[in-house]
Amino acid sequence: MSEEISSKLGPGAEFDSIRKVVKRLGQNAQGIGDDAAVISSLGEQKLIVSTDTSVENVHFKREWLTSEEIGYRAAAAALSDVAAMGAKPLGMLVAMAIPETWHAQIDAISDGIGEAARVAGAPVIGGDMSRSSELALTITVLGTARHVLLRTGARPGDHVYVTGRLGGPGAALRYFEENREPPTMLRERFARPIPRIHEAMWLAESGAMSAIDISDGLSSDLGHIAAASGVALNIDLSSIPVIDGVSAIEGARSGEEYEIVVSSPVEIDATVFKRHFNLDLTRIGSVDTGEPGVRFFLDGSQVAVPGGYLHFA
Amino acid sequence: MSEEISSKLGPGAEFDSIRKVVKRLGQNAQGIGDDAAVISSLGEQKLIVSTDTSVENVHFKREWLTSEEIGYRAAAAALSDVAAMGAKPLGMLVAMAIPETWHAQIDAISDGIGEAARVAGAPVIGGDMSRSSELALTITVLGTARHVLLRTGARPGDHVYVTGRLGGPGAALRYFEENREPPTMLRERFARPIPRIHEAMWLAESGAMSAIDISDGLSSDLGHIAAASGVALNIDLSSIPVIDGVSAIEGARSGEEYEIVVSSPVEIDATVFKRHFNLDLTRIGSVDTGEPGVRFFLDGSQVAVPGGYLHFA
Repeated sequence: MSEEISSKLGPGAEFDSIRKVVKRLGQNAQGIGDDAAVISSLGEQKLIVSTDTSVENVHFKREWLTSEEIGYRAAAAALSDVAAMGAKPLGMLVAMAIPETWHAQIDAISDGIGEAARVAGAPVIGGDMSRSSELALTITVLGTARHVLLRTGARPGDHVYVTGRLGGPGAALRYFEENREPPTMLRERFARPIPRIHEAMWLAESGAMSAIDISDGLSSDLGHIAAASGVALNIDLSSIPVIDGVSAIEGARSGEEYEIVVSSPVEIDATVFKRHFNLDLTRIGSVDTGEPGVRFFLDGSQVAVPGGYLHFA
Repeated sequence: MSEEISSKLGPGAEFDSIRKVVKRLGQNAQGIGDDAAVISSLGEQKLIVSTDTSVENVHFKREWLTSEEIGYRAAAAALSDVAAMGAKPLGMLVAMAIPETWHAQIDAISDGIGEAARVAGAPVIGGDMSRSSELALTITVLGTARHVLLRTGARPGDHVYVTGRLGGPGAALRYFEENREPPTMLRERFARPIPRIHEAMWLAESGAMSAIDISDGLSSDLGHIAAASGVALNIDLSSIPVIDGVSAIEGARSGEEYEIVVSSPVEIDATVFKRHFNLDLTRIGSVDTGEPGVRFFLDGSQVAVPGGYLHFA
C-alpha cells in the first residue's frame, strides 16, 4: 500500500520527505497522493472535523519528549477534539512544518502519528510538508457521529461528570520545568495522552448532551461549556478525581489531560462505565441557572480556583 | 452571527484572539465555537478534503505582501487544491500559528482569509490559534464533488490543457528578490491568485479525467500526473500560454500559479471555456505510452526544461 503511494508521487526533495512519512506510516496511511483526500460516503452520519496545532516550545520542548512521543501527542490532542464531539474518527491530515534540524526525526515523528492513527482507527489520508524554522504539526481529524455532543448542550439540572483522574500532566510539567525527569506514571500522562474516543461515544449513547475535552484545564474548559450553554456550573472541589500527590485545585488547573467532561440530564452509571473502560467516571457537580460561569465549592463554601492553565512558554 | 459565536467562547487571551478573527470574518465564519465543526449532509456527493500550510520566509516574505494579501493567498492556495479535484469548496478550518509581533495584524490577515472564503463560497467553520515564533497559516478545505479529478486519471491519447497564462508569479518573484516592486499586473498574479474552482468543475463536466493545480510549476506538477498515472506527457513548449515578456521555459517553471492542468480523452472547446470564464484554455500536449515522465518539445526536438520550481527560501 505505502509503496504504491510512494511510487505515485513525483520527484523532488519535498516529495522525498513525504515518501519517508508515507513509507513509515505503512498501513496507517491510505489514499495519499492527490491534491486532496476523498471520502466516499457518510451514510446517515454527520461529519465532524477539527484542526489542532502543536508547536515546539509552546506545546512541548524537544528535550522533554522523544520524537515518536511528539508525533503521537500531536495526533492524540487532535483526535481528542473529535472524541469530545462523541464522534468516531475516520481519518486525519497531517501538515508538518519542519526545520532542517528536525529532518532526521521524520521517521520517528511519523511512527508516533502512525501509532495514534492505529489506536484511533483513523489513518492518515492526506497532508502537507513545508520547511519552517520551528516544528509545527497541524493535524486535522475527520470523524462521524450520529449524536453530536456540543458545548451548547448543558441545561440546568444536568449532572456533570469527568473521566479519569486529573493532575498528571500538570505535575509532569512541574518536573520538566525544574529540569527533573518526572516519575514514569506522570511522564506517561504527559507524553502519551489517550483520546477518550470510545468513552465519549458511550457517554453520548448513555444520555450525555454536552462535552469538552480537557486541554486548557478543567476550570477553563468548563468555562467554555458555561459560556456556550449560558449556564452556571457548580463544581464540588472535593469530588474532583486526582492522582496521588496532587491537590484538587492542581487537578482543576492541569491542562493537556485529554480527559472528557460531560453534562447529562440523566444519571450515568459510573460502575458500568468503569467495567467497560477500566477508567473512573466521577460526578463532580451540576448545572444551575444564574450568571454563566464556573463556581467551585468546598464544604458548601465557594472557593476561588485561579484561572485556566496556559501553555508553559 | 459572529457576535453570537464570540459570546459563546470562554475567557482567556487565546480566545480573545479567536474572537478577533471571528468578529472580523463576520458572515464568512459559521458554526464556530465547539471542539470541532459539524457538516450535516453530503447528499450523493463525495467529500474532498485537503490541507495546506503557508509559512513566513518560505512561501512569502513579510515585506512583499500586505497582511490581508498573506491571509488571502494562504486561503487561495488551499482552496486551489480542492478546486484541482473538480470539487466545490464547502468550508475551511484555519490554524494560525502566530508570533507576538504579528498580533496587530490578526484583523488584516482575517480580512484576507474572509475575502477568499467569500469568493469561494466556503466559510470558515473552525480552526485553531497557537503562539509560535514564525507565522504559519495551515488551512484545511472541505469540498464536495460528484466526479472527482484524480492525478491517476491520465491515459495515452488524452489531450492536455492548461488554464490562464503562466509566468506572472515567477516574474514577480524575480522583482521581489531584487528588492524591486513588481509591475501591478505581475504583483497581483503573485499576491492575489485565483483558485480556479468553477473552471475546474466545468472541465470535469466537459470530460477531463485528471487534474492538478500548478503550485510547484507546470513542469513539476505535470510530473506528478505522469508518475501517478504511469504515462508519458508530451508537451509542446511553444504552445505554453505565457504572459508578455516571459519565455515558455520560464512559464513552465513558474510556481504558485494556481492555474489548473487537466487531461481529457475528449477535445474540450477552448472558445466556449473562454466565453464562460473570460480565461484562456490552451491545449499544450498529449498523453503517450512509454517511460512515465514529462517531455518538452520545440519544433519537433526534445528540449530540457530545468526541474521544478522550489520555494524561494
